[in-house]
Amino acid sequence: MSGICGNGSEGAESIVVSGGYEDDEDYGDEIIYTGAGGNDPNSKRQIADQTVDQPGNAGLVTSQTNGIPVRVVRGSGGDPVHSPAVGLRYDGLYRVSDHWSEDGKRGFRVWRYRLQRLDSDEETPYLPPENLPPGRQAPGQSRGVTTRILRLTEVSRAVKAIHKSTCQVCGLRLGVPGGSVIEGGHIRALGSPHKGPDTPDNVLCLCPNHHALFDQGGITLSDDLRIRDFEGKDLGALRTSPKHVISIDHVRYHRGLWLN
Amino acid sequence: MSGICGNGSEGAESIVVSGGYEDDEDYGDEIIYTGAGGNDPNSKRQIADQTVDQPGNAGLVTSQTNGIPVRVVRGSGGDPVHSPAVGLRYDGLYRVSDHWSEDGKRGFRVWRYRLQRLDSDEETPYLPPENLPPGRQAPGQSRGVTTRILRLTEVSRAVKAIHKSTCQVCGLRLGVPGGSVIEGGHIRALGSPHKGPDTPDNVLCLCPNHHALFDQGGITLSDDLRIRDFEGKDLGALRTSPKHVISIDHVRYHRGLWLN
Repeated sequence: MSGICGNGSEGAESIVVSGGYEDDEDYGDEIIYTGAGGNDPNSKRQIADQTVDQPGNAGLVTSQTNGIPVRVVRGSGGDPVHSPAVGLRYDGLYRVSDHWSEDGKRGFRVWRYRLQRLDSDEETPYLPPENLPPGRQAPGQSRGVTTRILRLTEVSRAVKAIHKSTCQVCGLRLGVPGGSVIEGGHIRALGSPHKGPDTPDNVLCLCPNHHALFDQGGITLSDDLRIRDFEGKDLGALRTSPKHVISIDHVRYHRGLWLN
Repeated sequence: MSGICGNGSEGAESIVVSGGYEDDEDYGDEIIYTGAGGNDPNSKRQIADQTVDQPGNAGLVTSQTNGIPVRVVRGSGGDPVHSPAVGLRYDGLYRVSDHWSEDGKRGFRVWRYRLQRLDSDEETPYLPPENLPPGRQAPGQSRGVTTRILRLTEVSRAVKAIHKSTCQVCGLRLGVPGGSVIEGGHIRALGSPHKGPDTPDNVLCLCPNHHALFDQGGITLSDDLRIRDFEGKDLGALRTSPKHVISIDHVRYHRGLWLN
């Protein structure tokens, strides 16, 4: 019954968007897609929690983390503006740019994936690699109009300065010639649908590994700022500073994206 | 004599582009800027190697790693198309998007920085933070035309599959709910001026930390694929697979960007 073809080790090859989940949102070039599982196919209503370990759901996670494009097929049961009048239609390649979990319209946990349309000629679809692909000696360039959220570098800079460019999770400082590598990561993500603020109490000073893990739910924080991995194991206390107050509301919002 | 105002701990506040270095390249919205040091001010010729520890040079590294915008001032001695006829002119904020070292026109080592113009209203210039800035509750959005290099996801995907999504430097696999975080990093960078190919022999499977360290010269590889930090310390052997041949030419090119 899943509209997702794929699995966690190889990624998702394709999805069908046909109104099977009442939580789906179809904006044409962008789709907020509901993961598989827990749905009553007759009423289209959620009757149980979804899990990210379901093969199709894990496939879409792997498509995001590995940058594997997903074929999108729309069916006539979907959004009337963007769907075919009858049958199914292949609508090109999309990338998975974000995912999280939330309570669906019926109060059960659903996994949500943001898919964004790719230019038709810029990507190759999913193919299991049997041999190494040849690649390209001279990669081309693409020009496109993009929308991005404006982050104030002064906010991240100030937070990084307080923590002396060391990661608040692991304490590492990654030295490079002339400087160091460190990132400011937002606890409650900026932009729709999370709409977090670009304020110091919503920013952590993180190494790239812990930034990526935090953004994808590999680690979460408890209300007393203990670090937990996604299997619940306690990894110790977040490194904090009295000069940098962290919003527990935002910590709870982030944790709510990944844990029931 | 340095045209760079700044240092490694706080970043670079501003640079002056006025033809002081014969290796500078000014394309208006993009500048390939030569670091400070080793120059004879009379002849404008390089007479000694530059080092990245020079305060201005380290300042531009910190501006890149911390995302600190740099004020650009052009002087009448610079490129005639983009420079004022007389005196100095403030030309707005640029971000440092890349840096590397190479042999300059006179055969001495120079550090090179790519600066790209920012939209006028999207960034705040460098200010040492005395207090935490308030930030913004509702960050705005910006639409702009961007040029990007097309990477074949199939190349990175195949390399990651061979290494089972573990980092070739540290052996870590970063698990997240439903998947893992791992990146494909190009040894010889794509795009100008490095013009590396998008081929499997030019791609490493790296965790985000080692990807960032590799891209910024924090680690390099020897011809026999030993990992060295930027102070020359041996960090062990790169994890390799007989299915994934790595180009030693590209390894040498990368090393040449960071070591004499």
